Amino acid sequence: MPNLDDVVREIADEMRQRTDRGAVASYIPELARVDPGAFGLAVIDADGRAAVGGDADVPFSIQSISKVFTLTLALGMVGDRLWRRVGREPSGSPFNSIVQLERESGVPRNPFINAGAIAVTDLILSRHQPREALGEILRFMQFLAQDSSIVIDEAVAASEQRTGFRNAALANYMRSFGVIDGPVEYTLGVYYHHCAIAMTCRQLATAGRFLAHSGRDPSTGHLVVQAERAKRINAVMLTCGHYDGSGEFAYRVGLPGKSGVGGGILAVAPGRASIAVWSPGLDAAGNSHLGRIALEALTRRMGWSIFGG
Amino acid sequence: MPNLDDVVREIADEMRQRTDRGAVASYIPELARVDPGAFGLAVIDADGRAAVGGDADVPFSIQSISKVFTLTLALGMVGDRLWRRVGREPSGSPFNSIVQLERESGVPRNPFINAGAIAVTDLILSRHQPREALGEILRFMQFLAQDSSIVIDEAVAASEQRTGFRNAALANYMRSFGVIDGPVEYTLGVYYHHCAIAMTCRQLATAGRFLAHSGRDPSTGHLVVQAERAKRINAVMLTCGHYDGSGEFAYRVGLPGKSGVGGGILAVAPGRASIAVWSPGLDAAGNSHLGRIALEALTRRMGWSIFGG
Amino acid sequence: MPNLDDVVREIADEMRQRTDRGAVASYIPELARVDPGAFGLAVIDADGRAAVGGDADVPFSIQSISKVFTLTLALGMVGDRLWRRVGREPSGSPFNSIVQLERESGVPRNPFINAGAIAVTDLILSRHQPREALGEILRFMQFLAQDSSIVIDEAVAASEQRTGFRNAALANYMRSFGVIDGPVEYTLGVYYHHCAIAMTCRQLATAGRFLAHSGRDPSTGHLVVQAERAKRINAVMLTCGHYDGSGEFAYRVGLPGKSGVGGGILAVAPGRASIAVWSPGLDAAGNSHLGRIALEALTRRMGWSIFGG
Amino acid sequence: MPNLDDVVREIADEMRQRTDRGAVASYIPELARVDPGAFGLAVIDADGRAAVGGDADVPFSIQSISKVFTLTLALGMVGDRLWRRVGREPSGSPFNSIVQLERESGVPRNPFINAGAIAVTDLILSRHQPREALGEILRFMQFLAQDSSIVIDEAVAASEQRTGFRNAALANYMRSFGVIDGPVEYTLGVYYHHCAIAMTCRQLATAGRFLAHSGRDPSTGHLVVQAERAKRINAVMLTCGHYDGSGEFAYRVGLPGKSGVGGGILAVAPGRASIAVWSPGLDAAGNSHLGRIALEALTRRMGWSIFGG
Repeated sequence: MPNLDDVVREIADEMRQRTDRGAVASYIPELARVDPGAFGLAVIDADGRAAVGGDADVPFSIQSISKVFTLTLALGMVGDRLWRRVGREPSGSPFNSIVQLERESGVPRNPFINAGAIAVTDLILSRHQPREALGEILRFMQFLAQDSSIVIDEAVAASEQRTGFRNAALANYMRSFGVIDGPVEYTLGVYYHHCAIAMTCRQLATAGRFLAHSGRDPSTGHLVVQAERAKRINAVMLTCGHYDGSGEFAYRVGLPGKSGVGGGILAVAPGRASIAVWSPGLDAAGNSHLGRIALEALTRRMGWSIFGG
Repeated sequence: MPNLDDVVREIADEMRQRTDRGAVASYIPELARVDPGAFGLAVIDADGRAAVGGDADVPFSIQSISKVFTLTLALGMVGDRLWRRVGREPSGSPFNSIVQLERESGVPRNPFINAGAIAVTDLILSRHQPREALGEILRFMQFLAQDSSIVIDEAVAASEQRTGFRNAALANYMRSFGVIDGPVEYTLGVYYHHCAIAMTCRQLATAGRFLAHSGRDPSTGHLVVQAERAKRINAVMLTCGHYDGSGEFAYRVGLPGKSGVGGGILAVAPGRASIAVWSPGLDAAGNSHLGRIALEALTRRMGWSIFGG
Repeated sequence: MPNLDDVVREIADEMRQRTDRGAVASYIPELARVDPGAFGLAVIDADGRAAVGGDADVPFSIQSISKVFTLTLALGMVGDRLWRRVGREPSGSPFNSIVQLERESGVPRNPFINAGAIAVTDLILSRHQPREALGEILRFMQFLAQDSSIVIDEAVAASEQRTGFRNAALANYMRSFGVIDGPVEYTLGVYYHHCAIAMTCRQLATAGRFLAHSGRDPSTGHLVVQAERAKRINAVMLTCGHYDGSGEFAYRVGLPGKSGVGGGILAVAPGRASIAVWSPGLDAAGNSHLGRIALEALTRRMGWSIFGG
Repeated sequence: MPNLDDVVREIADEMRQRTDRGAVASYIPELARVDPGAFGLAVIDADGRAAVGGDADVPFSIQSISKVFTLTLALGMVGDRLWRRVGREPSGSPFNSIVQLERESGVPRNPFINAGAIAVTDLILSRHQPREALGEILRFMQFLAQDSSIVIDEAVAASEQRTGFRNAALANYMRSFGVIDGPVEYTLGVYYHHCAIAMTCRQLATAGRFLAHSGRDPSTGHLVVQAERAKRINAVMLTCGHYDGSGEFAYRVGLPGKSGVGGGILAVAPGRASIAVWSPGLDAAGNSHLGRIALEALTRRMGWSIFGG
């Protein structure tokens, strides 16, 4: 078994030298300003040791990675009733497609495409006012990451809100079917804000540890979710976590993972490690280009694929 | 860790008593004659010991499960060039949908929907005449299952060929885009015949062992495919092996698996076991209803989910 | 040639006796209150004589019929540049479908489906503030109908605005592609208000006369639009005026026409007459059930089909 | 009123000088050999006088224009029961789309898209053996065109049959839903042969006269179809005769018309004239580019649009 620290260092070096970096997301103006050359990687193993490389302590916009945590939170609030509003099948279409909603009575295919995540946010709002809901989401992230300094980047949230007409279309469309209940602008407001949480790779890998360890944070012993539920969130991440590139990610990396348009990916090696990687350039499916390549190298060298060696 | 023999026996008993069995496939007349009460389960662990329950030695039509083996064979023949003709993303639509083909220039989304499997069969035919190709596929199954008595059920093949207009539509459609090359009737003939292979759960679980053990059959030591490739076939099974129920199977069972409309499922617990289950009644997505429930019970009791305990 | 007054009277009598009336639109609460037994018919011939039957002087909500007039107004403002924002092909899908927008970069197929009419309203707003735009539309209707008492039913407009999530989805979706420019809520506000104009059959038939007479109102001699443009608006009405029932309307009635969900239809017999009919019950495609049947009887008895006798 | 002979001559001259000619269809190899510079126009007025220009006596492959005549023939055989198998709404999609069939249980939207015309041919085959059916179609064309020398171009038919995989997909797909009954290869064989009929503009304009004159051929007095039916065939031509360019044709030309991929268009000015035009270059929707422009000029100069002047 290779040494994890060595492997992480090697990969960070290799990625630094690559020139194929994909394109930084431009549709959210504020995100387009990020340094395309950034690369960070943090791996936290079962014993809690962190192996980090590159810009692992630089905060970035976690964007859709937040959907893993809002799903966890909403499942805790409403339980499996959540699945009446959201499916758990891959969508076979881009992250912001509306076609599927028309075909399936406004029920989004899974909680990780935009429509599904908006519906999950709306469920959280069924219990809370917008400001409280957002506070609860942020405190949950701080608690999991064991770092109360984590904040929401208001400039990013405002930038998305100004330009998020497509998400407004998805939300209004679901509202017309009764799949979401509350005022559309409240739901979208909370959605844009939790997507605008800024975290470092190290914080994110820490926050994801409960998914790698049967629902329990091994450092605190705290049970975040039942083991059964952690397992199932991992399953949804595997089949749906990378939009219409989920098959490719499973094929190449072989771990449950969730990407964000900010260039981050959270990946889970069950029983072994929680991993966060960040490189802002995206591939055609909207997932971090070097992030996926780095994770592929990591799982191959460490033998961590859930599909065998 | 519970005893595997006990668990298999318990599950077979429980399934025998259930009355919710789904509906036997009726669109292939010959398949509609099967006993809906049949249930078989066979698990072969890493040491080669078989735990079996119910009708584990009754042959059934493996149907689409054959697609795992034709994919393996075709990858061995043409290597990763195969992926120029077939994608590896979940389809987000039923097994015999043609809509996706129109949207994506005739390239099927993955090798496990009908269109994709027909394209894979066509690739095998690029190297062989139909009769030889079929012989090669059958010998491959016999070799893997270590049983030369395995045959093709000609009545089933003929029944499908007479009524398979939708598959003929898919094949002609792909032919119009040049995604398949050969005479459509040859390709369909071989396709229907390999789907009509009849096997028992025990034979099928034996044949699938290389996928659980890094490409190698542990009983013979024979390397069927490179470890890397076995891992990747498992990944495609996980994301695409149950048509538009793949997300649900991953969520509930947590293993790579491939279903057939005959009611069989082959599942792989990497490093641990190869599993075959058979119950003819299907759910709405066309997958064995009790088969899936039995596998869910098995992985939960044995702690075999790849997504964590 | 039969006498027009007799024919109109006969048809009004026949329609009064029919019990198959379709279903009154229920998705706009305020519209659901209308008397389902109402039936009105008004025909104004080339000489300006009106033949009327039934409730021809009872006002009803013209709804999508207003789209003919906003199209006329917008063409007058921006000319054929309008067609950069809106197509003129039948949609092959229901009136409020969003699928087509995704496939075609947010450009609606024609100005008579909801998305297209919203885009036309947005063009009018490029020249006016919302309040002025609405005033201009209303004055245009009053001018054409030669009746300054025509008003907007504010209760209907408010009812639609409260429940119009699907239109909000369409508008936001087009906004995301830049097909509409202005603030979405302004555009929708004006759209709901012009749809809520209340008119009688007699007023509506009067207002439509310019379309039957080469763009000119024969009673005043006023040229509303160029002859070429009137002809072309008629063509778009024929191919697109009844949503996904446009083919059926052409097949049975054989006149350009535009329906509204309030149960009205405006139809044009070029060179001969302008016709308005009203019966609130709708068919499956969202068009007035008896309205279409009455028009079919009218064109057959009068020999007015544009497709020959 | 301008002189028809002068107008036809002028248009033929103007078209000869144009250099924008669209692209000759290449997907049927045999059709790709035609001279792209050819242009023919024939107009036969109510009195039977022919005004011709350009290559009006050069035969070309009528292709989909034949669908108007097979529809007429099939309606004569099975009456309005035909509409149980085929709709009469515009498709909103290209001529050979299969998506619509999946959405609507295999029932083609109208008799003029490929799928619909194949279904119509299959209905004719429910009464005849293939050879007889083809004989009947050909004799019908010869009778209407008053020219027994009209033949099928076997080379074109054979060329289409060899390469017609997409049509084979459509036919098999409909067969899977029971929308067509007979052996798929028979139906396709007859379909390719009637599309391969070769006619001149003069012959085609003659054959179309019954549609312009209430179902009756004015030169012989023979009633081909009831007036009601002729009117309705015209309506379907108007809404569906140019595939996904039908709205554009109605908007610009304002006549019922049917195009063929060989570059021909048959158009009908009810009560006035039957018109055939031919120019092999096609526009993006698969319709004759100069053919449409010539017809637009003709209807404008003669004031023949059915939408008014």
